[in-house]
Parts: sequence; structure tokens; C-alpha cells
Amino acid sequence: MSDHIYKKIELVGSSPNGIEEAVKNALVRAEKTIRNMRWFEVTETRGEIENGKVNHWQVTLKVGFTLDK
Amino acid sequence: MSDHIYKKIELVGSSPNGIEEAVKNALVRAEKTIRNMRWFEVTETRGEIENGKVNHWQVTLKVGFTLDK
Amino acid sequence: MSDHIYKKIELVGSSPNGIEEAVKNALVRAEKTIRNMRWFEVTETRGEIENGKVNHWQVTLKVGFTLDK
Amino acid sequence: MSDHIYKKIELVGSSPNGIEEAVKNALVRAEKTIRNMRWFEVTETRGEIENGKVNHWQVTLKVGFTLDK
Amino acid sequence: MSDHIYKKIELVGSSPNGIEEAVKNALVRAEKTIRNMRWFEVTETRGEIENGKVNHWQVTLKVGFTLDK
Amino acid sequence: MSDHIYKKIELVGSSPNGIEEAVKNALVRAEKTIRNMRWFEVTETRGEIENGKVNHWQVTLKVGFTLDK
Amino acid sequence: MSDHIYKKIELVGSSPNGIEEAVKNALVRAEKTIRNMRWFEVTETRGEIENGKVNHWQVTLKVGFTLDK
Amino acid sequence: MSDHIYKKIELVGSSPNGIEEAVKNALVRAEKTIRNMRWFEVTETRGEIENGKVNHWQVTLKVGFTLDK
Amino acid sequence: MSDHIYKKIELVGSSPNGIEEAVKNALVRAEKTIRNMRWFEVTETRGEIENGKVNHWQVTLKVGFTLDK
Amino acid sequence: MSDHIYKKIELVGSSPNGIEEAVKNALVRAEKTIRNMRWFEVTETRGEIENGKVNHWQVTLKVGFTLDK
Amino acid sequence: MSDHIYKKIELVGSSPNGIEEAVKNALVRAEKTIRNMRWFEVTETRGEIENGKVNHWQVTLKVGFTLDK
Amino acid sequence: MSDHIYKKIELVGSSPNGIEEAVKNALVRAEKTIRNMRWFEVTETRGEIENGKVNHWQVTLKVGFTLDK
Repeated sequence: MSDHIYKKIELVGSSPNGIEEAVKNALVRAEKTIRNMRWFEVTETRGEIENGKVNHWQVTLKVGFTLDK
Repeated sequence: MSDHIYKKIELVGSSPNGIEEAVKNALVRAEKTIRNMRWFEVTETRGEIENGKVNHWQVTLKVGFTLDK
Repeated sequence: MSDHIYKKIELVGSSPNGIEEAVKNALVRAEKTIRNMRWFEVTETRGEIENGKVNHWQVTLKVGFTLDK
Repeated sequence: MSDHIYKKIELVGSSPNGIEEAVKNALVRAEKTIRNMRWFEVTETRGEIENGKVNHWQVTLKVGFTLDK
Repeated sequence: MSDHIYKKIELVGSSPNGIEEAVKNALVRAEKTIRNMRWFEVTETRGEIENGKVNHWQVTLKVGFTLDK
Repeated sequence: MSDHIYKKIELVGSSPNGIEEAVKNALVRAEKTIRNMRWFEVTETRGEIENGKVNHWQVTLKVGFTLDK
Repeated sequence: MSDHIYKKIELVGSSPNGIEEAVKNALVRAEKTIRNMRWFEVTETRGEIENGKVNHWQVTLKVGFTLDK
Repeated sequence: MSDHIYKKIELVGSSPNGIEEAVKNALVRAEKTIRNMRWFEVTETRGEIENGKVNHWQVTLKVGFTLDK
Repeated sequence: MSDHIYKKIELVGSSPNGIEEAVKNALVRAEKTIRNMRWFEVTETRGEIENGKVNHWQVTLKVGFTLDK
Repeated sequence: MSDHIYKKIELVGSSPNGIEEAVKNALVRAEKTIRNMRWFEVTETRGEIENGKVNHWQVTLKVGFTLDK
Repeated sequence: MSDHIYKKIELVGSSPNGIEEAVKNALVRAEKTIRNMRWFEVTETRGEIENGKVNHWQVTLKVGFTLDK
Repeated sequence: MSDHIYKKIELVGSSPNGIEEAVKNALVRAEKTIRNMRWFEVTETRGEIENGKVNHWQVTLKVGFTLDK
């Protein structure tokens, strides 16, 4: 993290299986348009319930990536 | 909110008339470039004062929208 | 701040010399692609340490700019 | 608020028209089962968007009511 | 907001009709003794309930005003 | 705290004498309907003033109790 | 989330195996008495340690459910 | 709390004996210049230590009082 | 900080040059009417941008001062 | 607080009798290994309940002490 | 948690596999020097990204342990 | 930040000249006993006032350092 400038964006990933997979799904999608992702920070963990069971985990995360000079 | 990925952006809408209209004005502007807006969250409510009266309400909101796969 | 709509983005600027310069470096970079930046808000101040000394200050800031109608 | 004990519950009211009406709708529903409601505190303001417009305002509020001795 | 110094005070405005009017009522009262009010920030929204209905909206706001040099 | 599930409720206790007594008063009342209270967390400390003196301390607390399987 | 009113309750679920299972255990218990659970929000993640190892994960969550009209 | 407007000020009371007395000391002093104090909210509890013992409790509180129309 | 009572006020200082100078400018102005200022706490750091550069730093601070008995 | 450097540690004190005594008990224990404790800040107030009564107050506090140069 | 005094320290555990394992890794390391660890609280969840994938989960936790009398 | 475990401690540095120097002074002192400091996070900025001027800046920071395996 020397003299770079970073931008942070906020995403919500979802997964039927758990928190980690929801984060990964968000990154898979973000990678299509963002180069040089460097770190993420989880800011919220929620989920949808259907028939008394967790239908989808929904994890909000901020992703930091390098802006090319 | 099944298996979608969402992005959240932060906007400030303003209106001379009130909080709801400030939110609506922000959405009208955002709709020009963003498809599939799904929800918003108000994070800050402020306003400018002129001659002792509210000149403009300024509402900060986060808007979540679906990223196409 | 009359009837404009603003967007806020989140950046991390860095500098070996101090907080103010880290903010300025972030703005120099942001100015290349964003017109009409109006204000910023510092949300986090961190830094990297190397050999017991501050190697880089890292300042997270939100930048608000006008969206043209 | 002399020597009473209060309980606080958390509700989400919704309305197509605005924040105040969303609060009122929550109270109308709560009144059916809770006696002696005394105050509320708004803790979150959100909304659903459909076709670029606010479909429903959703306001989270805590409601305090007296527990009879 | 060039080289001015501002002071912020905290007020609670109330109104039987809604949030915006509660803010306005606070400003009407503050204007009697404070010159050069410039902006406000809503920090809390509450209300009193009577017979299951909102009796008064109570909005806490910080008001910033210019201190003459 | 082995494999139990807990529920947390939010109460406001009051007392003319002090913070600890306000908490105790809330628990005395709660005990009438709740079995197996296990812990509490103070979330807010306020009070009413009358003639320049504290008339009542008002302490908001969350109370956790075991849900029987 | 059209014109419904929701109530939110706060639970603590626990599990020897992990965060997701602690959430699920809380929902299994809640389902016995609450119909129409719709979403949850994780507000705290803790755990008990025994002999240097995680004995139980304890996850606090708020659960939102529809109140029938 | 009908149609009044309130102002809130922030004080720090201190006492060698405890939290409640620190609050009372602040109110005794405030009463000399402020009429119609109505409520207070504790925002911070600190203390000075001398020779390993609490020398003074220092409690920060916000005090709300009625502004005469 | 023995048995004194303190009051805290909230100021916004500004400076074209940096954070420290913005704080100092606020104190210079406050000193004209307040005796016995003892400490300050920075609560917010913002700034105005003009032509892509920081035009003014704006630092919000709380200032504590002794109230004479 | 001239040119010293301080370290802050986080403790949880407990007492069957009240908040102040829980803080004092934490300081009595800390004094055995820490010299030059200067101030504390209460960050959390909780308690254990047994048979519907407060069994132990548990107060989390940060303690600041001077590091010798 | 009867009459003990606890100390809380803050650790960051990391793992390539997930949140739970990052916590466990932190505890394994802490156990080498700390006796009587009793509970932990997760305060932050982050991660490093490499080539668009989560390289390491990084979980900040506070660990409470008993101080022997 | 591969598979290391980190510990975070909280320090308060002070300086008559400014925020950056207060941070540096804290690190100079910490380096005497801590190896492998890696980053810091500023959590609070305060200062002492004497005769209306900043006598000392006081900056609270958390410092993260690697624990050797």
C-alpha cells in the first residue's frame, strides 16, 4: 500500500449456503469489471427466511481496489 | 433477492419541500443511468437555512440495485 | 447546494508525509475522471509502519460531487 | 414517567406515501394488542423502489409502552 | 463556508403534524436569538403517543450558525 | 450458555434513587412473566428533572433469558 | 414487503460448530411460536472459550416477521 | 412535551463519590442560569485515578430544557 | 479536573491550510467570549473542494471549559 | 498530560453491589501490576441475573496509564 | 463470572478458509501465553483479495480472560 | 498479512505540534518493547488547551503487530 490511491465500492453478495460463499459470489461478479481488487470489509450480515429456514445469506461488503495512476 | 449480486451507491438528493421529495429527486436523477434499482436506505438528513427558514432539505441515501450476471 | 443531486464516492489516499497530503493525493487522482467535486468527509485515518516508523498515512474519505442534470 | 416500568418493541411500518404515514400504520397495527403506548423512536428509514420510483417507505421504530404493575 | 467559524447548538422541535414542521418550529424559535443560521442536521426522530396515535413529533437537530469575527 | 437459545427484550426501569435501583425495579417487574432471566445490558441512562433536581432515573436495559426447548 | 407491518425480535442462537449453525438453531426454536418470519440481521458474534478452544459460537440476530392484519 | 421547543446543552459533572452524585452536581450548577430543565441523558462515564483509586467520577450529560415562547 | 463542572460546546473551525490550523482558528474565536477552556475533542473532519483542490478544511470540535462555581 | 505517552487496557470489573464498586474492584486488581494509572472510561455496563435478581454487576472499562520514557 | 476480574485483549486471526478458522487460529496462538481465556467477541471481518479471490480472511476479535486474584 | 496472527494495543501519543507528531511519538515509545509493528488506526483526536491555545495534541491510536509463531 505504498503510494497508491484506492477506491472502495459497496456490494451485497448472496448465497444459499453461508457467509463466506456470499462474499465470494460478490467478488466473482465484481471481478468482471474491476481490476486490482485488494481487500474487503464486511459491514452487514443479513438473510432471507422462507418457511422458517435461511433461504439466502446476504452479506454487505466494501471492496477496495487500486486506481491506476 | 434470490441469487443476485447488488451494488450500493450513495447519493444526496435535495428539495425545497421536504424529506420524501428529496429522496424522490435523487432517484429521478439516478434512474437515468442505473437500471434495476431495488431499495434505498436514508443515512443522513440535513438542510440549508436561509433567512431563518429551511431553504433546501438534503437527504443522503444509499441505493441498492441488481448487477446483471 | 440548491437543487442539485450529488453522488458520494469513497477513496483512500496515501502519503508518506501526513494526513492532509494523503487527502490531496486522493483528490488529484479523482479529478482525472470526476468533474464538479464539491466536498469531502474524512472517515478513517490509518497508516503503515515499517521499522517502527510511519511509512505511509492512509486516509479514507468520501467525496461529494454534483451530478449534471 | 414517574415510577412506571416500560417495555420497548421494534416494529417496521410501511406506506406508499411517506415516513409519517409508515409510522402511523405501524401504530394502528400495534394498538390492537398493546395498551398504553407512550412514545416511539425512529431507528431506520428505508424504502422499496419499483420502476425507478419509491414503491413503499419502510420505517423501523421502537415503541415504548407502560407495563401495568 | 470560507474562513468563518461556526457554532452548533442542539434543539428539539415538536409538531403535531410531521417531521418537517417540527424542524421548522425549532428554527422559528431559534431565529429569535440567533443570527446567521446556516444549516441543520437531524440527529433523532421521536414522538409522543396518546390513545394509540402520534400526539407530537419530536425532532432533535443541530443548527450551525456563523460567529461574527 | 451451552446449547440454549436466548431471547432479549428491552425494558426501561425507573427509580427516584439511582441507576442500580432503576435496573432492579425493571427486573422485579419482568420476573412476573419471564422465567430464566440470565443477564442484562444497560443501553441508555437518562432521567427526568423537576425543579432542578433528578426526579427519576430511567435506565434502558436489554434482558436475555433462556427459551425452553 | 408491500403494505405489511413487521415486528422484529432479538434472539441469541448458539452452536458448537459455527456462525451459520448458530443462526439456524435460533430460527428452529423461533419457528415454534412465530409464523411468517421473513428476514434476519446479525448484530453480534461472540463465543465461549473452554480450554483454549471455541466451546460455543453465540450469534445475536434480529428476526423480522409479518404481523397479520 | 406538547408544543414546546427544547434546547440541549452538554455538561460534565464530577464527584468523588459516584455517578449519581456527579450528575446531581452538574444539575446544581446548571440550575443557577437555566430555567425549566426537563431531562438529561448520560453520554459518557469516566474518572480520574490517583494512587490506584478513583479520585473523581466524571459524567458527561446532555440536559434538555424548555425555551419559553 | 477536581470538583469542577464543565460545559462543552461544539464549534466548526476552518482553514485553507490544514486540520491543526482549523482547530486553532476555532479556539482563537472562542477565546473572545469563553474563559477557562480546558480541552477539545475533534468529532468530524471535512473540507470544501474547488477546482479539484481543497479550498478549506473544516474541523468540528467540542470544547470543554470550566464553569465558575 | 504534558508530553507523556499513555497505554490503554480494557478490563471487566464485577461486584454484587453496584457499578462504582465493580470499577473499583477492577482498579484494585490492576494496581498490582500497573503503575501510574491516570484515568478510566466506562464502555459497557452489564450484569448477571440469578433468580430474578442482579447477581453481579459487570462493568467494562478502559484504563489509561503513563508509559515511563 | 462471579467475583472475577477480566482483561480483554484484541487480536486479528487469519485463515485462507473462513471466518471460524481465523478465530480459531487466533485462539491457538493466544493460548501459548494466556491462561483462562473465557470468551471472545468478533469486532471486524475483513479479507485480502488476490487475483479476484479471497486470499485470507482476517477477523478481529476481543478475548476476555480471568486475572487470577 | 498471510497466515500471521496480530495483536492490537491502544496508545495515546501527545505532541505540542500536531496530530502526525503525536502519532510518531507514540510509535517511538512503543518500538522500545514491541517488535514487528505493522499498522495503526487513529481512533480519537483530542487536545489540552492552556490560555486559549492548544498546549498538547493527544491522539489515540491502535497499533497492530505480528505475534511470532
